[in-house]
Amino acid sequence: MSNLTRREAIGTTAIGAAGLALSATASSAGAQEPQPIAAIAGKHIPKPLRFDPAKLSGLSERLITSHWENNYQGSVRGLNTIEKRLAAAMADPDYPTVAYAGMKREELHRTGSMVLHELYFDGLGGDGNPGGPIFEALDSWFGSYEDWEAEFRRTAMSLAGGSGWCILTWNAHTRSLHNYWAWDHMHGAAAGVPLIALDMYEHSYHMDYGTAAARYVDAFMANLDWEVIDARYQAATT
Amino acid sequence: MSNLTRREAIGTTAIGAAGLALSATASSAGAQEPQPIAAIAGKHIPKPLRFDPAKLSGLSERLITSHWENNYQGSVRGLNTIEKRLAAAMADPDYPTVAYAGMKREELHRTGSMVLHELYFDGLGGDGNPGGPIFEALDSWFGSYEDWEAEFRRTAMSLAGGSGWCILTWNAHTRSLHNYWAWDHMHGAAAGVPLIALDMYEHSYHMDYGTAAARYVDAFMANLDWEVIDARYQAATT
Amino acid sequence: MSNLTRREAIGTTAIGAAGLALSATASSAGAQEPQPIAAIAGKHIPKPLRFDPAKLSGLSERLITSHWENNYQGSVRGLNTIEKRLAAAMADPDYPTVAYAGMKREELHRTGSMVLHELYFDGLGGDGNPGGPIFEALDSWFGSYEDWEAEFRRTAMSLAGGSGWCILTWNAHTRSLHNYWAWDHMHGAAAGVPLIALDMYEHSYHMDYGTAAARYVDAFMANLDWEVIDARYQAATT
Amino acid sequence: MSNLTRREAIGTTAIGAAGLALSATASSAGAQEPQPIAAIAGKHIPKPLRFDPAKLSGLSERLITSHWENNYQGSVRGLNTIEKRLAAAMADPDYPTVAYAGMKREELHRTGSMVLHELYFDGLGGDGNPGGPIFEALDSWFGSYEDWEAEFRRTAMSLAGGSGWCILTWNAHTRSLHNYWAWDHMHGAAAGVPLIALDMYEHSYHMDYGTAAARYVDAFMANLDWEVIDARYQAATT
Repeated sequence: MSNLTRREAIGTTAIGAAGLALSATASSAGAQEPQPIAAIAGKHIPKPLRFDPAKLSGLSERLITSHWENNYQGSVRGLNTIEKRLAAAMADPDYPTVAYAGMKREELHRTGSMVLHELYFDGLGGDGNPGGPIFEALDSWFGSYEDWEAEFRRTAMSLAGGSGWCILTWNAHTRSLHNYWAWDHMHGAAAGVPLIALDMYEHSYHMDYGTAAARYVDAFMANLDWEVIDARYQAATT
Repeated sequence: MSNLTRREAIGTTAIGAAGLALSATASSAGAQEPQPIAAIAGKHIPKPLRFDPAKLSGLSERLITSHWENNYQGSVRGLNTIEKRLAAAMADPDYPTVAYAGMKREELHRTGSMVLHELYFDGLGGDGNPGGPIFEALDSWFGSYEDWEAEFRRTAMSLAGGSGWCILTWNAHTRSLHNYWAWDHMHGAAAGVPLIALDMYEHSYHMDYGTAAARYVDAFMANLDWEVIDARYQAATT
Repeated sequence: MSNLTRREAIGTTAIGAAGLALSATASSAGAQEPQPIAAIAGKHIPKPLRFDPAKLSGLSERLITSHWENNYQGSVRGLNTIEKRLAAAMADPDYPTVAYAGMKREELHRTGSMVLHELYFDGLGGDGNPGGPIFEALDSWFGSYEDWEAEFRRTAMSLAGGSGWCILTWNAHTRSLHNYWAWDHMHGAAAGVPLIALDMYEHSYHMDYGTAAARYVDAFMANLDWEVIDARYQAATT
Repeated sequence: MSNLTRREAIGTTAIGAAGLALSATASSAGAQEPQPIAAIAGKHIPKPLRFDPAKLSGLSERLITSHWENNYQGSVRGLNTIEKRLAAAMADPDYPTVAYAGMKREELHRTGSMVLHELYFDGLGGDGNPGGPIFEALDSWFGSYEDWEAEFRRTAMSLAGGSGWCILTWNAHTRSLHNYWAWDHMHGAAAGVPLIALDMYEHSYHMDYGTAAARYVDAFMANLDWEVIDARYQAATT
């Protein structure tokens, strides 16, 4: 077993932002308060939009801004709240299992919402023209780009009027490309790397399109930034 | 847009087993039958166990063999069936959306079951002694290995008596480690890389332990192969 | 075992609209086509609104009409489609189980959506003033009407920004009143009789209120027809 | 609005066991502690088996006893725990919505498990021979009793190897009979009255049958008490 100190361990493993936060806290001399648990520190910070929400084609500034401010940021806040409660529960060995289950479900729920929304917004701002290795891969895996798009749209429309996500995914375990149907923020293929996350919750389109979900999907496709999608694909497969 | 032929495209992108199968099919001269769609070719082949099922500690050969033959292989067969039906539906533009939704859900369901079961079985066969960078990382993210294990077990036990998975996951988007609760084969954190997949469906333990799920979790932990877990962690983070 | 003919059986049991449709079909002389299966005949007919959608307080005609025409009627159509496909599958003993599962899930999904939407719309059109035995019962079960309403609103708001229903339910098995959280159209307490069905899918409010779900709940409460609610309660409990 | 006192209200409405418990508490003079909230008093008491678990055909005493003691009673205990926590949260207006959502989900989960298990056990102990109006109704709604049983078994088997319930249900809203697929304890048709609840969680059969779920369904059918089923049907439809 390892003889490394915690500090050395942090230096030798890939630790993200939360881990660094722990490190900073741990190094403050004489801290009396309990150490925050890095995994559930409740310190997620919303990411800004990387494009001007007034400049998308067919998706109004009001819609995008509401989606980003209310739905996305609401999930980040919710995740922070639930992480702090989970951390508190860790200190209580008698915490009821049945209540713990409910919190763990919300942790998954809000994590999925936060991550998928970030992938959604970061995938917008482009001109909708596909290209690069991801284009070739869609062609190979689905017979043609058009066949892929037809299956992607059909999957999306099977969620219209309700909730969920349609997710082009690189399955890192089976090493294959798929359009996965997801009923809510918690669904997704095990070992899946999301490349395109199309939000089918009604907050994504009702303000602009009412129930005309197919027109929303048109607008989504027209704003996709395929350089971002391709970069995700290449990062996942190489 | 690209001018590459499909064959060249295959050569330049990371294509897995199904893609190669397509390639082989596509090259056979004079084929009259429709091209299989590589993404949903329905050709998944069960992976063999990498350990002798008679040699685990506290998990009987009968249990492991039944789990692997019936539950895991049943999911592989189910996925192959549903993929072929999805491929057939792609040729029918009038296929009802409501029926398509049901099939897409089963595709996700069976994919998750296949992948998680492969991660489950491949993670067994060890001596249960943790070590390496993953051990250090658990220490960093949860305060100590013991605290991690306590949270992992609590999450698992919150699913006892029902169904689901407890999954130690590297979240590649937030770059952090978490124990995620999963209600069924379809649940999992978006962008999550499963490192330990603990099956909490009752077929994983009832034959040996009845409802004594905590004893099953003991046995699972005692057979974990941490070299495999660590290799997954290092592959995910570097 | 009974010696009743089918016709006599129909006469002695409570058979609803679909059963009568079967009866009519069965009586047509010389029919060559297979008998429709009454349980899954795919003949559901949308119910009209019982109030003028232009006359609700705080819920626009555009919103109510869109909700009723698109979301509700879409579910009725989807249910009819899936029932006919289930009926066809009954004639095929080799129909794959995995595909059947997907259709049965959609049957439940669309049934729930149809029924809950009918309860939703039929519960509107009133002045929001509670009274009668249901008012007394809420007082008894929750300490006061105000405490009930606080719990009902909190349950509803826990679904804001996503999907689901908040359902005041008479549990006919435990013989008690509860506000149940429902994640989607398929959720509901076993043996539950819905008394108030508050739609929390975003199509219920986004057009009028955007993400301000609490204001939508205000409007919903202000339009509740408590005579209808009370009649449901009395029918369920006597 | 009503001028009835709470006591009079209780006298005029159908209040079950929990309501009576409240009544008793409310009448005790000088109580200083907060009133329990009858709807979530956390006082559910497990029901005894109405048959000798050693006397079923093809379902072992060990299996039935384990199922009843551990799975069923575990759910009753879980529901009591979560109800008490919900009651405590009602007194805290700042209780986080995200944590409340998790508890409401567990309330539904455990309620469904308690109710469905009671219907399951109370439906056993018979000789499996159907008769009475329910038999005639199955014949009418499904074409024949045999067709009904085929659809019931197919629905059940679509859940084999996982979790859920297959539920013959009188839909009190559509006034029709259906076999509903249910993925877990929370699923069920809105306004549905369960007549036969077939538990497909693996704890229902693995001890006796391993993964041979079809043989378990055989055994379940052979022990059904159709007098009970028929009584439920008649109560629901008259």
